[in-house]
Amino acid sequence: MAVIRDKGEMRSWSRSRRKAGGGLALVPTMGYLHRGHLSLVEEAKKRAQFAVVSIYVNPGQFAPTEDLDSYPSDLQGDLRRLAEMGVDAVFCPTNLYDYGEGRGVVGDGERESFAGAGSIGGGDVGREGKLLSCVEDRGGEGAGHETWIRVERLEKGLCGSSRPVFFRGVATVVAKLFNIVEPDVVVFGKKDYQQWRIIRRMVRDLDFAIDVVGLEVVREIDGLAMSSRNVLLSPTERQQALSISESLLKAKVAVQNGETSCEGLKASVTRSITQAGGRVDYAEIVDQENLGVVKRIRSPVVFCVAAWFGKVRLIDNVEISL
Amino acid sequence: MAVIRDKGEMRSWSRSRRKAGGGLALVPTMGYLHRGHLSLVEEAKKRAQFAVVSIYVNPGQFAPTEDLDSYPSDLQGDLRRLAEMGVDAVFCPTNLYDYGEGRGVVGDGERESFAGAGSIGGGDVGREGKLLSCVEDRGGEGAGHETWIRVERLEKGLCGSSRPVFFRGVATVVAKLFNIVEPDVVVFGKKDYQQWRIIRRMVRDLDFAIDVVGLEVVREIDGLAMSSRNVLLSPTERQQALSISESLLKAKVAVQNGETSCEGLKASVTRSITQAGGRVDYAEIVDQENLGVVKRIRSPVVFCVAAWFGKVRLIDNVEISL
Repeated sequence: MAVIRDKGEMRSWSRSRRKAGGGLALVPTMGYLHRGHLSLVEEAKKRAQFAVVSIYVNPGQFAPTEDLDSYPSDLQGDLRRLAEMGVDAVFCPTNLYDYGEGRGVVGDGERESFAGAGSIGGGDVGREGKLLSCVEDRGGEGAGHETWIRVERLEKGLCGSSRPVFFRGVATVVAKLFNIVEPDVVVFGKKDYQQWRIIRRMVRDLDFAIDVVGLEVVREIDGLAMSSRNVLLSPTERQQALSISESLLKAKVAVQNGETSCEGLKASVTRSITQAGGRVDYAEIVDQENLGVVKRIRSPVVFCVAAWFGKVRLIDNVEISL
Repeated sequence: MAVIRDKGEMRSWSRSRRKAGGGLALVPTMGYLHRGHLSLVEEAKKRAQFAVVSIYVNPGQFAPTEDLDSYPSDLQGDLRRLAEMGVDAVFCPTNLYDYGEGRGVVGDGERESFAGAGSIGGGDVGREGKLLSCVEDRGGEGAGHETWIRVERLEKGLCGSSRPVFFRGVATVVAKLFNIVEPDVVVFGKKDYQQWRIIRRMVRDLDFAIDVVGLEVVREIDGLAMSSRNVLLSPTERQQALSISESLLKAKVAVQNGETSCEGLKASVTRSITQAGGRVDYAEIVDQENLGVVKRIRSPVVFCVAAWFGKVRLIDNVEISL
């Protein structure tokens, strides 16, 4: 298994494989792999001749206030597992936003002032908020990354409400990985449902020649959705967190038994999680395709939840297709 | 010369050429080609084995209030010229934002409401203005394109101040063309200086494996910068418009003779254009790399101007490298 840290080396590796006629499937991850990830890797191996896994904790999707520094990692363990599975290459760059240039990649300080800054106006734009991720926050001394991809509607709502830089960072780093690895297929987990929809939309809208495959949520034996962050839960929180999957499953059963009004369903899930000791960020029922909020269920929906247990924020969802 | 309208066909054409080992250079244009464009095509032919020119008037970079519908075109004339020059393929799609899908690509009407809309907040974002181009304006019945690339600093100021959707649309359509044509090299004119810098930055920040080449402004014999919009000028306006290049040239000479203060230089150019009958949108001296506004010239700058003559908006610039 090739373990590659350099962008250029990664692209050369891919191109030589493609030249030989082989298709390439990519699984982008942030590492600390669990069985959910491994199911994506299995799928990647089925979909193409060569399977590549990327491991990169992307500062572009974390706000400076979020848990970038405490995100769990175990690169050696990850590499061992992936080698056992017969993955062909792992791409684990150190910094995808460091362009190693001098002049022309300046921080704020070197810029005397900024044409138009503070005076953006005109008929087509209102006041514009500036998003700030760990890339801008730490990039003052020369990084200078300033290009961001926005999937403007899908990125709002759900996780986008409480994490406004998140999907901008996800879409951007995934596009970078696409341009470096040049895969034919990418595999994502539908646990990150909004992310999966956003990537599919980005691929369509920017004409990437890539198939985006989404796989079902993989769960622990007691129902908890697999997540790299689960390891951060205390034993008590771990137990409390079961309220998410349990209440979502109950809601699904209720819909299958004829319930169509979302208000009661959402109240019930929120109550269960809160009573268990969690703090609900959102509990929302949305259209499976466009993620628009649904009030009465008449077409396929997905019930999405984010909730805090202690300092850990977990997400989960169930698709309900009637 | 292949004349290709379909995305998939264009990509297949490129891939078959690359498979045979040939490099590919792309010149993206909006058609109505003049000698400025043709110089880019010549360069493209030198840079790679195969030269592709795209002709597409991109609605994504026009605001609904702008001149999309009156943008000049002459496809047959363009194709004749390009064939004479030995171009290998012309890509002239009808609509790059039409994805021909049904459900999942809905307009506003089908979305019951929008999770989080109107309540975007949190520490990392202020109030966000929504940009509106001719794509959103005309895409209500199923187009649904919503992915946009923002080069957040470089897109502001200069042309970005009066045309807030412009560079978002340019960056996005160029990325789409990159993903469809898959070139190794692209050639742009430095008449659109800010555009050239934005594309270079986007290519670096998103890790496109593409060289971005910029060529000097090509001028009419009397100095007017070549532009497809020049044909829209009345004979009087055509004469008045010379004030742009003439005053820019004078400014350059003044700097070469020791002037370093930008205030007087800008006032002088503004006065010349106004006196000739033009209306200055901006006359700004900025750093060649980061486009930051410069007050005193100590390093390479570019003097950029946009001005209206009647209903026609023209841009021009001179690089001043001391």
